[in-house]
Amino acid sequence: MAGLDKKKPEHMPITSFPVRDGELTVGGIKISQLANRVGSTPFYAYDRGLITERFQTLRDHMPADLKLHYAMKANPMPAVVQHMSRLVDGLDLASAGEMMTALDTGMAPDLISFAGPGKTEQELSQAIAAGVVINMESPLEMENIARIAKQQGVLAKVAIRVNPDFELKASGMKMGGGPKQFGVDAEAVPEMLSRLAELGLDFIGFHIYSGSQNLSVESLLDTQEKTLELAVRLTEAAPHAPRKVNIGGGLGIPYFPGDKPLDLKVLGAGLKNLMADFHKQLPDTEVVMELGRFMVGEAGLYVTKIIDKKVSRGEIYLIADGGMHHHLAASGNFGQMIRKNYPVAIGNRMDSSEKEQANVVGCLCTPLDRLGDKMLLPAAEVGDFVVLFQSGAYGLSASPTAFLGHAEPAEVLV
Amino acid sequence: MAGLDKKKPEHMPITSFPVRDGELTVGGIKISQLANRVGSTPFYAYDRGLITERFQTLRDHMPADLKLHYAMKANPMPAVVQHMSRLVDGLDLASAGEMMTALDTGMAPDLISFAGPGKTEQELSQAIAAGVVINMESPLEMENIARIAKQQGVLAKVAIRVNPDFELKASGMKMGGGPKQFGVDAEAVPEMLSRLAELGLDFIGFHIYSGSQNLSVESLLDTQEKTLELAVRLTEAAPHAPRKVNIGGGLGIPYFPGDKPLDLKVLGAGLKNLMADFHKQLPDTEVVMELGRFMVGEAGLYVTKIIDKKVSRGEIYLIADGGMHHHLAASGNFGQMIRKNYPVAIGNRMDSSEKEQANVVGCLCTPLDRLGDKMLLPAAEVGDFVVLFQSGAYGLSASPTAFLGHAEPAEVLV
Repeated sequence: MAGLDKKKPEHMPITSFPVRDGELTVGGIKISQLANRVGSTPFYAYDRGLITERFQTLRDHMPADLKLHYAMKANPMPAVVQHMSRLVDGLDLASAGEMMTALDTGMAPDLISFAGPGKTEQELSQAIAAGVVINMESPLEMENIARIAKQQGVLAKVAIRVNPDFELKASGMKMGGGPKQFGVDAEAVPEMLSRLAELGLDFIGFHIYSGSQNLSVESLLDTQEKTLELAVRLTEAAPHAPRKVNIGGGLGIPYFPGDKPLDLKVLGAGLKNLMADFHKQLPDTEVVMELGRFMVGEAGLYVTKIIDKKVSRGEIYLIADGGMHHHLAASGNFGQMIRKNYPVAIGNRMDSSEKEQANVVGCLCTPLDRLGDKMLLPAAEVGDFVVLFQSGAYGLSASPTAFLGHAEPAEVLV
Repeated sequence: MAGLDKKKPEHMPITSFPVRDGELTVGGIKISQLANRVGSTPFYAYDRGLITERFQTLRDHMPADLKLHYAMKANPMPAVVQHMSRLVDGLDLASAGEMMTALDTGMAPDLISFAGPGKTEQELSQAIAAGVVINMESPLEMENIARIAKQQGVLAKVAIRVNPDFELKASGMKMGGGPKQFGVDAEAVPEMLSRLAELGLDFIGFHIYSGSQNLSVESLLDTQEKTLELAVRLTEAAPHAPRKVNIGGGLGIPYFPGDKPLDLKVLGAGLKNLMADFHKQLPDTEVVMELGRFMVGEAGLYVTKIIDKKVSRGEIYLIADGGMHHHLAASGNFGQMIRKNYPVAIGNRMDSSEKEQANVVGCLCTPLDRLGDKMLLPAAEVGDFVVLFQSGAYGLSASPTAFLGHAEPAEVLV
């Protein structure tokens, strides 16, 4: 039995937030001090230094001529987007709301792209007026863009979002291959390109995105190879060589017990070879990788205070002032089939050796509100800080904050 | 094969929204006219008449001396809560935010109860000042209440939320039995009652809630029986007979293919017998049933407009201007293990006989954003209205509206 227990998968240890006086620090500030600065719990804290560091690591390992974009849907906090805009080569967004935040950074509009299967008339109009690149999801959308651009008297910049004829292996979320709501089936792209030329739209290139949260270098490279090949193939029908090919992202981060981080060195070397082959055919086409979660996910924490501790029929419950309304993904209700624990710490007891098994639950009146299930944690008390790691992406903005009428949590970039 | 297909479970037909000129009506208003009145899609529409009708049906079938409360977390729209407050015997809430809405109705504070496992110091202070009944979730919370009430110089009204020693059979969500974050284990209640008396709190009664979304009359009655028995047992240790026993609700509504509505007549007759027995022991104790979803769930629609229609590799996609950011539950990401379709209609093609199989997806750039999977629907076009039924409870307030930066949908009570 002891032997079996040892084989139970564990969370990868998280060492990126230094500990001082037994407390986790974010941007050099102890968690208790940060809570005082914020003035209330719960809150999200993002570490500016860790975001920069992650970007630099990517930049060091990826091919020098690969453009790196930030997909701001992962974390649209304006301060985060501003910070990212000073690092990356472009921003990718998914709504007119996000576009306003992106334009506020001063990033040039032609380095901003807008994807999304259901763009409204209003959104298309705003995007055309702004001069951002619109990733077109259907022939109808293309006709609408041409009509609106003509009304506005401007040249619309467009790319075609392609639903490829292959799939990303072992991806957390599949977004390509087979019938899909995203983009235009690869086999229908040539006809769309010929209509695009007739309409006089400014053809920027292709957006070929196959999945997300992938932790296998092998399958990422496999997809990148097929993606670049597909782009070359589709170019045959294009009015001119694409200026950009957005190959998506898909790089995952370790959330759950047993997850291992990606080996960026191997991925970068592999992609370098693929891009060398690609540039033999299309020497002037930029290759863009679009990353959201991978840029910011590991730099963020969700911090919530314990306001009650009780034992129910032998099990310990730490009851926090936050919960699923702020962090839906950690509760297991955001795309997961089976609930698994995010890595959790007691932020002010990092040196504690006294451990006990506890459940971490939120303040909501629903059994769905569970942040940690039977976890071995330092023995915690009322007033302690529960910290959820890997919370920098798809946290606050992906959560039902109005559920049960509690206050919104704060966000800080430290 | 045809025979097998016929046995596939189907959605219960929904006939409560009359059709006029081929259009669904809400409160007598055609869906297209309502969309014009609201001024934008998507929106939620709740039918005032259907809410009243549901309440009357309940009132007619339930025992005359059963008090009916509205659990406003199901739908906290202020206009809905105002309407409910003129029908029900009390309101139940789960946060200080909800309490503000409840008090704005003019409902007497002692007919309002506040439950929730993680009430903050601030929330307790507000609740005590307001004079609402606090359903206490732990001994620590009781001590905090006593301290704050003393500071404020008021008598706090309290009930004990009990984690029972049984479970609601066949419930969508289990909230009682075994170790739980909710309430006080039944076996620990006597000790808590004796401390309650010492602290001089105003003892109102017990809150015993075992689950929700239950579609079996048999298991509901089984639970009600055990709940009332438990209340009698717990009373032995109480300072005086409880003034109220809140037996929870748990009455489900049919969402998915194969779901059948509850037989209220059987449920009401059964509960009448149970209450007769109960009142032999505790003649002056009011029995309260607390219903949220059952009161409002079937009276609400989510309406979203089709902005694109495309065929990808043989499958039809209707792309709507709304999606999971407004209606998380319909996307299958709110407590469901397996995604199932809510009942869906094309609101302006109710008389159409031309049907086709289609997927209804939202406007978000994520494969999670699916509102209808391979459904047989009237052949629909851009500009048509997709209507999701059974959307009056746990819709907007339980959804991540900020996800991807789109605008909030409107809500109307018609």
